[in-house]
Amino acid sequence: MASFFALIMAGGGGTRLWPLSRRSRPKQALTLVGERTMFEHAVDRIASLFQPEDIFVVTGEDQVESLLIQAPELPRRNFLVEPVGQGTAPAIGLGAVHLRRRDSQGVMAVLTADHFIRDVEKFRRVLTAAAEVAEKGHLVTLGITPSFPSTGFGYIQQGEMLYEVDGFTVFRAERFTEKPSPETAFQMVESGLYTWNSGMFIWRIDRIMEEFARQMPDLYDALMQVDAVLGTPAYEPTLQRLWPELDSQSIDYGVMEGAEDVVVIPVDIGWSDVGNWSSMREILPADRDGNVVVGEYVGIDTSNTIVFGGKRLVATIGLEDVIIVDTDDALLISPVEREQDVRELVRRLQEMGRKEVL
Amino acid sequence: MASFFALIMAGGGGTRLWPLSRRSRPKQALTLVGERTMFEHAVDRIASLFQPEDIFVVTGEDQVESLLIQAPELPRRNFLVEPVGQGTAPAIGLGAVHLRRRDSQGVMAVLTADHFIRDVEKFRRVLTAAAEVAEKGHLVTLGITPSFPSTGFGYIQQGEMLYEVDGFTVFRAERFTEKPSPETAFQMVESGLYTWNSGMFIWRIDRIMEEFARQMPDLYDALMQVDAVLGTPAYEPTLQRLWPELDSQSIDYGVMEGAEDVVVIPVDIGWSDVGNWSSMREILPADRDGNVVVGEYVGIDTSNTIVFGGKRLVATIGLEDVIIVDTDDALLISPVEREQDVRELVRRLQEMGRKEVL
Repeated sequence: MASFFALIMAGGGGTRLWPLSRRSRPKQALTLVGERTMFEHAVDRIASLFQPEDIFVVTGEDQVESLLIQAPELPRRNFLVEPVGQGTAPAIGLGAVHLRRRDSQGVMAVLTADHFIRDVEKFRRVLTAAAEVAEKGHLVTLGITPSFPSTGFGYIQQGEMLYEVDGFTVFRAERFTEKPSPETAFQMVESGLYTWNSGMFIWRIDRIMEEFARQMPDLYDALMQVDAVLGTPAYEPTLQRLWPELDSQSIDYGVMEGAEDVVVIPVDIGWSDVGNWSSMREILPADRDGNVVVGEYVGIDTSNTIVFGGKRLVATIGLEDVIIVDTDDALLISPVEREQDVRELVRRLQEMGRKEVL
Repeated sequence: MASFFALIMAGGGGTRLWPLSRRSRPKQALTLVGERTMFEHAVDRIASLFQPEDIFVVTGEDQVESLLIQAPELPRRNFLVEPVGQGTAPAIGLGAVHLRRRDSQGVMAVLTADHFIRDVEKFRRVLTAAAEVAEKGHLVTLGITPSFPSTGFGYIQQGEMLYEVDGFTVFRAERFTEKPSPETAFQMVESGLYTWNSGMFIWRIDRIMEEFARQMPDLYDALMQVDAVLGTPAYEPTLQRLWPELDSQSIDYGVMEGAEDVVVIPVDIGWSDVGNWSSMREILPADRDGNVVVGEYVGIDTSNTIVFGGKRLVATIGLEDVIIVDTDDALLISPVEREQDVRELVRRLQEMGRKEVL
């Protein structure tokens, strides 16, 4: 088998888990499950598949030191720092440019740093199977079996069935769809032909470079300029010059929707993007009243409530479907149905100049 | 005019303001309004009426040091310590025994340490007027003009109008009633003939001793034994011996309901007993959305909510009629309509052995 690399995307910010997530403490740095951060979990779960020198991380200047502390086993040179975040396409491109120096025929797995995966063993098996499929030249996406008709994810439509590999079925990916309306989401989930786009991709490095060249020529040109100075003192200045000029673009829209030979492997691995507080229900067990609780808690007549506590006792009476997030310097209380307004709250705090809690 | 003394009742505990109030920090020690504690306010507002040596405080062993720090201007000997709290009748009796040594014909005002009074100037005027009335031998009660049909207070029914004194009208007190049903409360308030029993009384010391002798002979007997050893080394042991044996009794039921020559002076002084969190609305101003907020706060679509914050930012979305109390080690969230269950919560914490937050 060819070389197999992991590229962990760890540049995300995210205000939807405010007040726990902050500018200086993005989602991947949070300890939402157990004692380890999301990023630590992301590295841990692939540790048996990859040597540390084969695990790369794309991130930003302000996060690299924190990530290095969380994953000291990874070589510092494997942390690829973008001068500015421009979406997943440039981030993956930068990773590909570095990885092709190691083995241009190698396979890379694009993984996420801030998602939860319950069934880690199956995740590793599907990654291995996907690498086998990718070696043939397919661009492989991991499609998550939908557990509900989410309107928060893009979907991948399955086409022709291609093969079975190690118990997983590989389909041609017929179409990528954007976040759907509730009705469309319902129909897609009912049909059984759609999976969630998890943002995890496995492909040969030369294949994704081909797609960049064909579909995103400006990005490809920039990547070639970076390639020309890789390992020289001109690398940093070149990146600093090129990156701010790039168009911000996601790999989904920039490449995957128009790519050739995209396949999808549907898989049920207990995945959650932990995109908001109510998704804590997907990753933590609930008590008999449906409450999901982290920290010290006592409640009377409280149900379906999420209590993400801090260092103090949280006591509630007569609440239903409420989110309570208690941190050292900020406390959030919101009905579950209003949680999308956390963004608006963060925007207001910005306007108020309350940088210390952002 | 005869001597005029103040006896501040500062023995209260109170769990209804949990988690702010604690065993070691009862309501009178809380800073609910401004920077001063309730007890400090209680002393401050009578400072222009009484010399410090004429202000006495009845309290418990566990609170006396804290109170001394809050009111360093008062002589230590004026803090009368009950070995065990047995209701207001023994507390007032103990005060009366001490005060009669100073002037048995003097007038004493029984005042509270943990109530809020907005119109302090009028309060002082009515106290002065009440002292004048008390000199004649009446037992004077201050009756608070009801602002709503509360079921949480006892009421005093007005009888014959007796005199006008300094702009206040003195009525014979026809009857003391216990906490009424909602219907009865409504009727009483509608009639205009009832006021709330504030627990503030003004009377000649010899008159209240007479009433103790007549209506509570056991207590009177104990008080006489204390009187016999006052100022001697036997005082402490005598109190320690007698007090645990006393019947626990309030002055209302023990004396006032059966007393002779009780009068009431109705007065509107912006009084609140601050008996629960929703009464914060009576003592603090609300914003345009009806929210009463202490501390740093940002809210979206939040109304009629009480936010008693601590050191951290409190952020809310889509709440209505909710109480949020944030302290260093415990956080309470409850709908206003469920706040009576704070007691149940405290009881549970006791059962759970969570002494450190009680």
